[in-house]
Amino acid sequence: MKLFGELVPFETAQDIIERYTLPVEHTQGLGIDAALGRVLAEDIIALHYTPPFNRAGMDGYAVISGDTTSASKQNPEKLKLVDTLYAGSIPTVKLSAGECIQIATGTQMPVGADAVVMVEYTERQGDEVSIFKPVSSLDNVGLKGEDIKKGDVVLKHSVCLDAGKIGVLASQGLRLIKVYQRPVVAILPTGEEIVEIGKKLKPGQIYGINSHTLSAVVKESGGLPVIFPITRDNIESIKTNLAKALDEADIVVTSGGSSVGEKDLIINILEEWGKVLLHGRKIKSGKPTTFAVVRGKPVLGMPGYPTSCLMNAYLFLGPAIRRMAHLPPKRNIEVDAKLGERVTGSVSRKQFLPVKIEGDIAQPIFKKSRAITGTAKADGYIIIAENTSIMEKDEPVMVTLF
Amino acid sequence: MKLFGELVPFETAQDIIERYTLPVEHTQGLGIDAALGRVLAEDIIALHYTPPFNRAGMDGYAVISGDTTSASKQNPEKLKLVDTLYAGSIPTVKLSAGECIQIATGTQMPVGADAVVMVEYTERQGDEVSIFKPVSSLDNVGLKGEDIKKGDVVLKHSVCLDAGKIGVLASQGLRLIKVYQRPVVAILPTGEEIVEIGKKLKPGQIYGINSHTLSAVVKESGGLPVIFPITRDNIESIKTNLAKALDEADIVVTSGGSSVGEKDLIINILEEWGKVLLHGRKIKSGKPTTFAVVRGKPVLGMPGYPTSCLMNAYLFLGPAIRRMAHLPPKRNIEVDAKLGERVTGSVSRKQFLPVKIEGDIAQPIFKKSRAITGTAKADGYIIIAENTSIMEKDEPVMVTLF
Repeated sequence: MKLFGELVPFETAQDIIERYTLPVEHTQGLGIDAALGRVLAEDIIALHYTPPFNRAGMDGYAVISGDTTSASKQNPEKLKLVDTLYAGSIPTVKLSAGECIQIATGTQMPVGADAVVMVEYTERQGDEVSIFKPVSSLDNVGLKGEDIKKGDVVLKHSVCLDAGKIGVLASQGLRLIKVYQRPVVAILPTGEEIVEIGKKLKPGQIYGINSHTLSAVVKESGGLPVIFPITRDNIESIKTNLAKALDEADIVVTSGGSSVGEKDLIINILEEWGKVLLHGRKIKSGKPTTFAVVRGKPVLGMPGYPTSCLMNAYLFLGPAIRRMAHLPPKRNIEVDAKLGERVTGSVSRKQFLPVKIEGDIAQPIFKKSRAITGTAKADGYIIIAENTSIMEKDEPVMVTLF
Repeated sequence: MKLFGELVPFETAQDIIERYTLPVEHTQGLGIDAALGRVLAEDIIALHYTPPFNRAGMDGYAVISGDTTSASKQNPEKLKLVDTLYAGSIPTVKLSAGECIQIATGTQMPVGADAVVMVEYTERQGDEVSIFKPVSSLDNVGLKGEDIKKGDVVLKHSVCLDAGKIGVLASQGLRLIKVYQRPVVAILPTGEEIVEIGKKLKPGQIYGINSHTLSAVVKESGGLPVIFPITRDNIESIKTNLAKALDEADIVVTSGGSSVGEKDLIINILEEWGKVLLHGRKIKSGKPTTFAVVRGKPVLGMPGYPTSCLMNAYLFLGPAIRRMAHLPPKRNIEVDAKLGERVTGSVSRKQFLPVKIEGDIAQPIFKKSRAITGTAKADGYIIIAENTSIMEKDEPVMVTLF
């Protein structure tokens, strides 16, 4: 029987995993309405001016600004109405001195006109329009290309698409764009006593939980989870599934193996086929996590206990998947709170302690790491630094929300 | 020609919209792996104890704790090995005084045993096991139901499902659960000059942007967007599409209508068919927004200019959709910054000013509201209170991130 191997500090573990979980290179075409949260894999060069023409910025009358210089409420300038342009109309009449054209917001400016007088400052009688206020050249006019010029890079390679950026794609008339594929994440549940959900439990068996929580973390981190069937503790079936997973996925996550024997089975295969870089973590709930590179692909082995597995998924798997998906690190939301209960730290390890927030109190969730309900109730976690022996009730703490 | 109607304060507008955009009632069955971010529409009652039996919490030897009372490194207690239980094994041998059973973590405890001695504190020679350390009753044993008891409400109606809560569902073996349906949001783009993406622009035309940005905001707020074809400024086609949208969707969002004439067309229909509750907003970029209730369904009319439309979507549409989807309000992320440039406020209106964050500077994005690139570059917005005439460069501001 092997022990868990040397403990490494949390940050070292992070660094090692970071080095081997690299952004995926494969791209795909995607419709812009399906692209929210995806990462652009090309520069978008403007093919059009936006707006494509000078246009009215207000409802009113297109004029030659020079005609309005002396206009006032007392002495309105009277212009002759020679045309009316509704939204979407194409101007056909050229404007001459002393004339005006009624125009709707957004409509292309007629040739000759250089400003728009807002409808509020006018009065119309038949085809005579009184102007009550002077305008300067380009007043209430949106200029061709003032937003985007043809040839501009309007969106750069590698940006994550939010609603505003999808709007920019639409402004160029693009229906299909190139984005990075989501990293495919094979989830390999193992364990002799584990049963798939939906099946009936026999004595001694429990439902497999980790593949479903891992799948959720993968999804919210921008990956595409593929849950494999549960592998029994049998070297041949683990090898078969692992080979298939390495073949199909960008990263493999094994879960379960709550006993030393099971963990050994998997670690032995990883060592035989590749290089095991981490056997453990210097953080409390993450001790039995492993990390290996096999056939050029990263393999992350998660602890079997559901709460440890989920906490480690938030700490290591989520960030790795985001990196592989070209997504920026998650914006952590941190909340100040007071510790609801005295907790004890550890000399050798940084601890990540799930807490529930009640008002301004961070209430530690002390359920053992085998309890899934612990993390299900938690709103986030606090970090207890290495070599902290005790944190007192009411001590100020910073909670990182899940 | 009608003017835009009275301005109401931002908060009043929010209240009115809130009153008429209520959580949807229809539910659906959904597989748990598809349920991330969805809202549970039933209480989940535990059908099983979790764990379903007392089990070993460590790899080691199941013992009768009383047998180990005087065990020490110097004077080990010697017990007779009578069975070996691997993960998933069902115990068949009853333990008697002076005996022990080798057991793997997570495995059901054998009858008679009340504690587990960790393998680190033992030494085995043939079928004789030396115990170096005493254990108390229940040491290293996970108790049946310590996590979840049969009959417990493990998840309550209306919770939003995150990874941990999906784990709780899995622990009960559930494959299918009941969740609220996503509110269906009909998006009705209007405008004579608007063209669908992918088509070629003719003179005087521009691509429709708003339906795509609105669709993205609806999605990220938990709704199901349905983009309708563009409606020309024609009362019959607007009526046909609006009737269809009211029939199929939980809420209708019209977009476009950049000219007063178009807006009038829609408002007239809304007034004819239902009740218009808001004609405008006392916020700068949101002035031409309307809100009506027609045939019992909320109708939100967004301004035509892309940046105004998107800003208003973040302020009004997103929160409404989250409410309809039973989701809690979005957790706003706020960042302290210094204003990068002097800005002027307004006497009568609260302003929401998009800004880009550069280091600790919030740089206002001054592009006119017709420019989609403005919001695409913005990281968030600052609020300029009513009756604030000027905010100086370097003044501290709070940026709400999009």
